[in-house]
Amino acid sequence: MKTTTIWKGDHRFESEHEGNKISVDGDKKNGHGPKALLLSGLAGCSGIDVVDILEKMRVQFSDLSIEVESEQTEDNPKVFKWIMITYNIKTAPENEDKVRKAIDLSLEKYCGVSAMLRKNSPINYKLEILK
Amino acid sequence: MKTTTIWKGDHRFESEHEGNKISVDGDKKNGHGPKALLLSGLAGCSGIDVVDILEKMRVQFSDLSIEVESEQTEDNPKVFKWIMITYNIKTAPENEDKVRKAIDLSLEKYCGVSAMLRKNSPINYKLEILK
Repeated sequence: MKTTTIWKGDHRFESEHEGNKISVDGDKKNGHGPKALLLSGLAGCSGIDVVDILEKMRVQFSDLSIEVESEQTEDNPKVFKWIMITYNIKTAPENEDKVRKAIDLSLEKYCGVSAMLRKNSPINYKLEILK
Repeated sequence: MKTTTIWKGDHRFESEHEGNKISVDGDKKNGHGPKALLLSGLAGCSGIDVVDILEKMRVQFSDLSIEVESEQTEDNPKVFKWIMITYNIKTAPENEDKVRKAIDLSLEKYCGVSAMLRKNSPINYKLEILK
């Protein structure tokens, strides 16, 4: 796996991966800050797992969104003190246990981003079933 | 810090941070894969430090680009076995020691992404001075 990241002036960069480009901006005017990319990566990684596992379980769902929040330490290097993920998903209330099972499998077994970030800071989650 | 990531079907997501949006795609057709975001975040985080430190040192430079490569483990959860960063920068050859000092300060002292990812896997770097 490889990314190529080109400086565009100030704190702005363009980062390419397999032909796709994103803007990275330490000043957050024209792109994600670098650390926010870790939170987006965690959401994507776990989101993919949850979608795949729920489809295997034949659970009907829609409107999945994942909020990831974190607070940083005061001193350099500034790292995440903790990470809290909120999974919002529209599904029948009786599917709640299956959704929790899918999330637990992702965070504990499949999601490599979670496994890596957890070595620095605790990761917890909340589940909101939308009607 | 907070990101909001919305499922767009298949393995595609849109992830928002402070008004900026990126596409995330586990199939890498329409966006970075989740793990690649960690490598882009590492490049951006360290790149910002290097730019800031070289400016403080009054080192003239241009054409900074940062390649980040990694290999993943075979088993789930798939994590980075190692990370190799290549910094490419155009500057006078006599500035090489100052550039190395800036990179070392970033990776060892300032860059929070490096500090977090290093808890899982070793991070090494190469420096290419462009003429």
